[in-house]
Amino acid sequence: MSSLTDVQAHALTEAQNRIQQDLLTALDAFAIPEPLKGAVHHAVMLGGKRVRPALCYAAGALKQNPNAAAVRRAAVAIEFIHCYSLAHDDLPCMDNDLLRRGQPTCHVAFGEDTALLAGDILQSMAFEILGSRLFDQGPAVEASIVLKQMQILATASSKMVNGQVLDLQAEGKKITQDALENIHRNKTGALITAAVMMAAVTLFEGTDQAIPKLREYGQAIGLAFQVQDDILDIVSETEVLGKTAGKDQQVEKSTYPALMGLEQAKAYAQDLHNQAIGALAYFGDKAEQLSQITQFLLSRKS
Amino acid sequence: MSSLTDVQAHALTEAQNRIQQDLLTALDAFAIPEPLKGAVHHAVMLGGKRVRPALCYAAGALKQNPNAAAVRRAAVAIEFIHCYSLAHDDLPCMDNDLLRRGQPTCHVAFGEDTALLAGDILQSMAFEILGSRLFDQGPAVEASIVLKQMQILATASSKMVNGQVLDLQAEGKKITQDALENIHRNKTGALITAAVMMAAVTLFEGTDQAIPKLREYGQAIGLAFQVQDDILDIVSETEVLGKTAGKDQQVEKSTYPALMGLEQAKAYAQDLHNQAIGALAYFGDKAEQLSQITQFLLSRKS
Repeated sequence: MSSLTDVQAHALTEAQNRIQQDLLTALDAFAIPEPLKGAVHHAVMLGGKRVRPALCYAAGALKQNPNAAAVRRAAVAIEFIHCYSLAHDDLPCMDNDLLRRGQPTCHVAFGEDTALLAGDILQSMAFEILGSRLFDQGPAVEASIVLKQMQILATASSKMVNGQVLDLQAEGKKITQDALENIHRNKTGALITAAVMMAAVTLFEGTDQAIPKLREYGQAIGLAFQVQDDILDIVSETEVLGKTAGKDQQVEKSTYPALMGLEQAKAYAQDLHNQAIGALAYFGDKAEQLSQITQFLLSRKS
Repeated sequence: MSSLTDVQAHALTEAQNRIQQDLLTALDAFAIPEPLKGAVHHAVMLGGKRVRPALCYAAGALKQNPNAAAVRRAAVAIEFIHCYSLAHDDLPCMDNDLLRRGQPTCHVAFGEDTALLAGDILQSMAFEILGSRLFDQGPAVEASIVLKQMQILATASSKMVNGQVLDLQAEGKKITQDALENIHRNKTGALITAAVMMAAVTLFEGTDQAIPKLREYGQAIGLAFQVQDDILDIVSETEVLGKTAGKDQQVEKSTYPALMGLEQAKAYAQDLHNQAIGALAYFGDKAEQLSQITQFLLSRKS
């Protein structure tokens, strides 16, 4: 029998392999002129944990899914949005980061103008993919389901930008835990929740109890993810993290450890994790994949 | 009886007043933190000719329209995309423009980071508006129609970015007329055609002859618009144009006048205009508004 760590790694590794393939297939479906094509590929294929696609797949597998193609498109679309946000975040006028996942950032490799445009087109490509027939093997997914996915993605993308602004505004200031949570529920939480919900609408009607349960789950892990990120920024070394560690403290960023102390922050991450697992109870054994990813998010070292 | 010029001005002025109101209503529907809110308002409310919304309204009025709310949302969404593209184009890493429509550009007024984020959120807000119930007075518009609108908008937005890249690549190079047309069909033509088509799908089924006729119309005026822009860059003064005139020649940009001479470029604009009017013949008197806007596009001085 494999250890718990092996099982966790297995569930995520499988999702990572799947999304890697689907991202490449999706990118190949677009005719993009160079050097933009190179920049878009760079921004998307840099790697990363692919947590959002993994959550999307896992939520889409809560029962036999006739709309599996829509889940795969959603996973690609949400990762495109995530990658666009990273390319723009790294720009000199934002975080001015030179290194991401141990690689030169998009603007370092391709220039600022091309990195800006790569982010821009990744956002519209996300909506193109979502509305396409990519991965379809059977009849088209109902328009009302696709429309819901688009609404979820668009709203989460806007929230992400709002969170970014709230975050910039808070730099160098002392803020309350409520204000910090508001930043993170927008900046990272919204897109993580969206990954779960875009799969949820392919399986469950709006009236089903499953919908609020999955929203609760998504919101809890969305926040837990950020708390864990803040903790890792303090306890990890640059080498393991793949980006400059300790950067939050350098720029006097409000973080959960700064606000409540490291041990309290760890306890809070655990609370949120328990809350997420609690919401999954409704689905019984079917939630095994989601539960594994949740475990991973709390135990990750980078 | 009013002169032709008065009639032209009237049709466009009416659309400009309508879109001004609808843009404000749409912006009010979003909770955006400062300073982003100010930057988004600045980017959207700077004014401009509002050609895309005017085309959208006019195409949506080709017959009695039960989906009028979807046309209004499309007009707002397409203008949001246009305004996002201007905010990003003006950034220092792109055109580094300080002035637009006689006003400081978004990054001059709000800083580069906020202007970048204003463009980013305007893109997702466009898709949010399109998928919303804003302006609805009757039952919801069919999901399949809204989905088509989203597909059209997403594809056109991606093309716009591709055109931008092709344009940057062509700077300082001698290119063929085919290459120049390819740039403009993507960079400006795609969004102008989309303005027409997003209204078209609220009225006509895919099998209707009206659809290819309107596409032909949109493509012809999309290109005519750019040819006229190139001509105006040479013949207008900065004061009338509201932006720095003669800029194309400064940066050795390929333009229609540079490629074929000023007189030939004027004749080409007229050809495209005739082609557009020809495509409208199918609709008879119903196309009066579209025809007026077409007249304006060729006779405009800025």
